[in-house]
Amino acid sequence: MAEKLKIIPLGGLNEIGKNMTAYEYGGEIIVVDCGMAFPGDDMYGIDCVIPDVTYLIKNRSRLRGLFITHGHEDHIGAIPYVLKQVNMPIYCTRFTAGLIKLKLQEHRLLDSTKLVTVEAGQTVKAGKFQVEFIHVNHSIADSVAFAIHTRMGVVVHTGDFKIDSTPIDGEVIDLARFGALGKEGVLALLADSTNVERPGYTMSERMVGKTFQRQFTGCKQRIIVTTFASNVHRIQQIIDAAAACGRKVAVTGRSMENIMKVSTELGYMKIPKGVLMDINRIKGLPPQQQVIITTGSQGEEMSALYRMAFSTHKQIDIGPQDKVIISASAIPGNEVTVGRVINELFRKGADVVYDKADMLHVSGHACQEELKIIHALTKPKFFIPLHGEQRMLQIHKRVAEAMGMDPRNICVAENGSVIELTTKHMKCEASVPAGEVFVDGSGVGEVGAVVLNDRKLLAEDGMVVVVLSMSSHDHRLLCEPEIVTRGFVYVKESEELLQELRELAMSTVDGMAARRRKDDNEVCRAVRSAVSSYLYKHTKRSPMIIPMVTKL
Amino acid sequence: MAEKLKIIPLGGLNEIGKNMTAYEYGGEIIVVDCGMAFPGDDMYGIDCVIPDVTYLIKNRSRLRGLFITHGHEDHIGAIPYVLKQVNMPIYCTRFTAGLIKLKLQEHRLLDSTKLVTVEAGQTVKAGKFQVEFIHVNHSIADSVAFAIHTRMGVVVHTGDFKIDSTPIDGEVIDLARFGALGKEGVLALLADSTNVERPGYTMSERMVGKTFQRQFTGCKQRIIVTTFASNVHRIQQIIDAAAACGRKVAVTGRSMENIMKVSTELGYMKIPKGVLMDINRIKGLPPQQQVIITTGSQGEEMSALYRMAFSTHKQIDIGPQDKVIISASAIPGNEVTVGRVINELFRKGADVVYDKADMLHVSGHACQEELKIIHALTKPKFFIPLHGEQRMLQIHKRVAEAMGMDPRNICVAENGSVIELTTKHMKCEASVPAGEVFVDGSGVGEVGAVVLNDRKLLAEDGMVVVVLSMSSHDHRLLCEPEIVTRGFVYVKESEELLQELRELAMSTVDGMAARRRKDDNEVCRAVRSAVSSYLYKHTKRSPMIIPMVTKL
Repeated sequence: MAEKLKIIPLGGLNEIGKNMTAYEYGGEIIVVDCGMAFPGDDMYGIDCVIPDVTYLIKNRSRLRGLFITHGHEDHIGAIPYVLKQVNMPIYCTRFTAGLIKLKLQEHRLLDSTKLVTVEAGQTVKAGKFQVEFIHVNHSIADSVAFAIHTRMGVVVHTGDFKIDSTPIDGEVIDLARFGALGKEGVLALLADSTNVERPGYTMSERMVGKTFQRQFTGCKQRIIVTTFASNVHRIQQIIDAAAACGRKVAVTGRSMENIMKVSTELGYMKIPKGVLMDINRIKGLPPQQQVIITTGSQGEEMSALYRMAFSTHKQIDIGPQDKVIISASAIPGNEVTVGRVINELFRKGADVVYDKADMLHVSGHACQEELKIIHALTKPKFFIPLHGEQRMLQIHKRVAEAMGMDPRNICVAENGSVIELTTKHMKCEASVPAGEVFVDGSGVGEVGAVVLNDRKLLAEDGMVVVVLSMSSHDHRLLCEPEIVTRGFVYVKESEELLQELRELAMSTVDGMAARRRKDDNEVCRAVRSAVSSYLYKHTKRSPMIIPMVTKL
Repeated sequence: MAEKLKIIPLGGLNEIGKNMTAYEYGGEIIVVDCGMAFPGDDMYGIDCVIPDVTYLIKNRSRLRGLFITHGHEDHIGAIPYVLKQVNMPIYCTRFTAGLIKLKLQEHRLLDSTKLVTVEAGQTVKAGKFQVEFIHVNHSIADSVAFAIHTRMGVVVHTGDFKIDSTPIDGEVIDLARFGALGKEGVLALLADSTNVERPGYTMSERMVGKTFQRQFTGCKQRIIVTTFASNVHRIQQIIDAAAACGRKVAVTGRSMENIMKVSTELGYMKIPKGVLMDINRIKGLPPQQQVIITTGSQGEEMSALYRMAFSTHKQIDIGPQDKVIISASAIPGNEVTVGRVINELFRKGADVVYDKADMLHVSGHACQEELKIIHALTKPKFFIPLHGEQRMLQIHKRVAEAMGMDPRNICVAENGSVIELTTKHMKCEASVPAGEVFVDGSGVGEVGAVVLNDRKLLAEDGMVVVVLSMSSHDHRLLCEPEIVTRGFVYVKESEELLQELRELAMSTVDGMAARRRKDDNEVCRAVRSAVSSYLYKHTKRSPMIIPMVTKL
């Protein structure tokens, strides 16, 4: 029988986020990335979403390691939750390790976890796999792609990447290595599809630095800049622009402070001496000598910028002396919250510079032409588009077809698909459990579809509880039913409606034959149906009706 | 005492939607527009939002008429709700009247309402006001601005507009009239701020027609096009492009069918003979002879396109034989729902042409350069930016300042502000009630902040009801407390937790002194507090706790 390599995406397909892919060869398994996703609008109350790793738990004895491409939440955010279920060594670059450590500390997993740092260019042996780390450009430092070598051939897994010929940390993506792999022969390519809808090229991170220089030069106002905390190179450029015009820099917002600490400790950020200042001290300087770097680029409630805008930040009051620069674009779904913060900043009289006004953000993901370069260099036999919603995966497929690939050698898969490769063929017939596990408070996986659906119903029209105290002898009501509503009507204004409901519930129970009244379920059903029809007729609303029978 | 004109915006400031402005002069009042707004993400279960018209109700005897600029929902959507509270004659153009009639019919208000149609160029006398209708371009037919003449001077109220020199209905906005008014002297300008963030000019509607021609030519697939139902000119262009390449056209989706009916009856749309076909009949034709025009450009659940994408549309099955053209851009907040529909269409194998791919939509609102032209032509003494969130109003203010206006003559107001003009001065000190009235089911204004807040809490973490049956003699529990949860935990998996809660509630009540147990509120408070702390400690969640005491 021919040798087989199985590729099992456990997250990241048909979605943005919770990236995770398992590779299985010769009875052993390695995993690439372990990310979380932000909850959708309809996932009421959920904190975050992580992949279902049932398959890994079942095969724990065969796991040889977790390889991480870079330190963004959609690639590392699920690590603590997954490690609590299956322990395995983690391999990643130094900066990524710094960010993972913060998470492990928070979840008290530091001691029980083997965390191995690897440099781009090196190769790690993990069971029958050899995993080679290849430097790529992305919107966070120290990002890598993997070349996963087995005796069957090599698979290139890009992770998130772009091609930046003038990156801030000096090194362009290692295209030479991708090309060399292509010449030796690549069995399969798994590549980032996030930006495949955009033609052309992604701009260099350095362009944003030019904007900072332009915005800072000659500005007499205090400057407040918000961006993604993890974009170390962006922050470096803000600091450089500040230093160049003699401004000091203070930092606010927990995630920003954490990342600054990690990146300066590990040498990924270089801060000229004397530039950084405590936020309480910087306030003593004239406005034109201040730069504040803050979290909140997505308008997140409780972020530092949000609190500044709504006047609840302890140190910073926004006013006409401020220029606020939002160096980010709104992630789809966040447009409204970002807009809300910008409105408040304008209301306070600040100048606000945001996406419509200047080149304030560049993406970290490859556009079509960059993706084509990777396809052209690696010349894979098989191709599996990764990281993207259905439309992105399908467009990536069409891009590959336009590059000359045989459509039968491209697989648009689902989370949980088991893609089986031989050196000659690819098939995708089986599947393993894969889906969304909800994290809510301290519960992981406790809140499922039923609970979420109830939350949705409660959110729509609220609820009405009807308590029926009944005799356990003759099954008659012992007193008037009690009624409580929440999210339905304002009680003080609706006493009349409530009284009608009480009478309706009473007459419904009284009207039932004694033998039907014996059965609590029967009573609940009858009351629910009567109350529900009555309310729909009178209010055109359908609150959740919850009858409760107490037998005494 | 100097004569006064009061301008009172009742909606449309610091928001997009529910536009409504009252003008008060010589003891009489007219109102311009009467729109609704779509509920925000945090307005759980709300159907739509309308302006608070308390001020108009209080002054009903002084109302002289409601003037409507055009037939979009954010300008006419609240009419039925407001007319039920205060009746007044409505003045508008013929097409707008056609759309308003549909609403009045639905709410059975047709007989009780005086609806007067007026043509652009005409002037209506309403009490001491003379309201002149001026033709403008916009994304719906028959749109007008108003020049509101009083003895004190003239106020120009633009409504929504753009400058389209090649409009589909033949007439460019009546710039000559705006210029003539400017030469005679304009006391105040109230202008649309929707697109003020965008520099330059809005493209002509005709550009989209060119895209249709390009997309239709040589296409062998069935073509399905979605756009805003009210954009009659856009639909005309789709039909023209279809006719030009020998395709037939069918229409699906209720609002699309309604508007097509009104606009063909009134002569606002010209359909070449034999082109329109029933959707059941068109299916008999080969794909390259079919065009389907459908609702759903915002990804609305239950719209025709949504149902096609998710395979629940009765007549249309989507497949690789289809090209779907989305001729709209996502309204902020709708990006995710639109994306979801596009994903499903791709999954079915269709070609989907959407905003990132071609020139498929142009805005109906003036960009900065067009706004400047109106400012330059009207040369107003006072300026009040309308229609927009805070940032847009502020940017519009800055545009006017850059045109040379004195900042003191510009007023960025709030809904409810009373702006008082004399021929010399403007002040804005008083205010009238103005805010959001929620429509939920058949209730208008019944659902307020308390109910919405409860819905939000219920949506976050669900709720726990604890029923305590107590003796009215010695105030002791008569049986174990009953507990019901919804949206908190899945009951079948959590029997243990519920049993602990029962025991906790019991021990809490049993542990209270008899005199405290007498007081139901005291009992509820104690149980709520105990259960709430317990749950937070064990689940890190805070469901709504609802204790209910039944005394027997």
